[in-house]
Amino acid sequence: MTYWQRLKDVTTARGALCVGIDPHAALLKAWDLPVTVAGMEKCARGLVEALGQQVAVFKPQSAFFESYGSAGVAVLERVLADIREAGALSILDVKRGDIGSTMDAYADAYLADGAPLAADAITVSPYLGFGSLNPAFERAHRYGRGVYVLARTSNPEGGQVQLALGREGSVVQEIIDAATEANHLGRQHAIGLVVGGTHSSLGCDVSSFNGSILVPGIGVQGGRIEDLPDLFGDAVRRVLPVVGRGVIQAGPGADAMRAKVQGLLAG
Amino acid sequence: MTYWQRLKDVTTARGALCVGIDPHAALLKAWDLPVTVAGMEKCARGLVEALGQQVAVFKPQSAFFESYGSAGVAVLERVLADIREAGALSILDVKRGDIGSTMDAYADAYLADGAPLAADAITVSPYLGFGSLNPAFERAHRYGRGVYVLARTSNPEGGQVQLALGREGSVVQEIIDAATEANHLGRQHAIGLVVGGTHSSLGCDVSSFNGSILVPGIGVQGGRIEDLPDLFGDAVRRVLPVVGRGVIQAGPGADAMRAKVQGLLAG
Repeated sequence: MTYWQRLKDVTTARGALCVGIDPHAALLKAWDLPVTVAGMEKCARGLVEALGQQVAVFKPQSAFFESYGSAGVAVLERVLADIREAGALSILDVKRGDIGSTMDAYADAYLADGAPLAADAITVSPYLGFGSLNPAFERAHRYGRGVYVLARTSNPEGGQVQLALGREGSVVQEIIDAATEANHLGRQHAIGLVVGGTHSSLGCDVSSFNGSILVPGIGVQGGRIEDLPDLFGDAVRRVLPVVGRGVIQAGPGADAMRAKVQGLLAG
Repeated sequence: MTYWQRLKDVTTARGALCVGIDPHAALLKAWDLPVTVAGMEKCARGLVEALGQQVAVFKPQSAFFESYGSAGVAVLERVLADIREAGALSILDVKRGDIGSTMDAYADAYLADGAPLAADAITVSPYLGFGSLNPAFERAHRYGRGVYVLARTSNPEGGQVQLALGREGSVVQEIIDAATEANHLGRQHAIGLVVGGTHSSLGCDVSSFNGSILVPGIGVQGGRIEDLPDLFGDAVRRVLPVVGRGVIQAGPGADAMRAKVQGLLAG
């Protein structure tokens, strides 16, 4: 089954919401956990234990695991397994981007069946050109997984590169158009976009896009779910909003986090 | 001591050469090793064992370790320790780039004293804007480490983003100018650039740049060390050429790899 179909099934059943797993030091302290790999594991897996049956998609942020070295990456493997066992999907936020055999290796690391760190989808970064990401698209198509390409990010500094003018329009528009075309050719809609929800206007046109749109920046960064229809127009039906700290900060109590998610799904 | 000073010392003593550690599957087979984490460890650590006293800088490519999951990342920790013990420097090629607390976590993961994956320098990717990389620069300054920002990459698809026109010139030129300014303010020359050696002309001006320039693409990708003076002009004295497969393919025999390095340093 394709990623697009799996995503549709789980968001139809559970609602279109992605919860970020960002176990940073300040959060561990707020949860009264030690800032150690054991404390981080308790936080990350506790979140999935509390919400795994309720939430459609989780987005673990790789950086917070990598900062503990290989022991942290081993926790990430267990978190990805927990998400799978709970019947939810994982979008592993790694923002990888490289060329040739190196991009092949990243694709194998995160999108190949049997890989220890295989996720249902990953994020990738197109600084080396959209075409450099082909190995990730190829693996996504082969294994029924997804790839979200950074297009317009939620941070204020992003415009420096993303709004620069390429041959056929802005960089972000070239990325969007190339992703649309690659989805058309691949016939799986496996390629998604990352478009931040913090901007007052997008500065790009996603109206013809034919994949999933991951929208971070909701909550602490200032974006609001209720503003997404105005921001995305008809494409809002493709939007998967990501709520990070808004949910995790309601913890560590499972009931409080579930109530927070319930409120977001209802609103 | 600053990264810049340490780099100067070791390249003065051993010559300005960086050897890539890219233990991909085809190479393991060529070395008659199994394509397993144990085979990969044998290849990567064997390379450092053979060349650790001869070569100034090693560039392990994180993707080839990540593809084995946490077990592969544990090998990377040992490879980084081997490089340190041999008196060489490590530039860990991770091409990370993110925002806010996530970029903080990457900076802590790879540039903070005591981190399991701390390297002497890392590569970073500026798709989210040069300013988003500040946490990496801050850690580099604090801990005497280095950060190489992707500017102009060696692959043909890179121009799509890198040669797009921003407010004050091309994206690549804005990155170069911002890095120059940040080095000036930081007073450590801790910020380097990645500029591929495969282009017939750079398409950007590095003549005022004040840090180290890492130049991949030499050898298999078509770049030649003897062409670097023409390509970089006076800035060639800042260039650290990276040779990847050219050296490792001469293995697994240590003598053959040492002879290959000797030839590159003499040429």
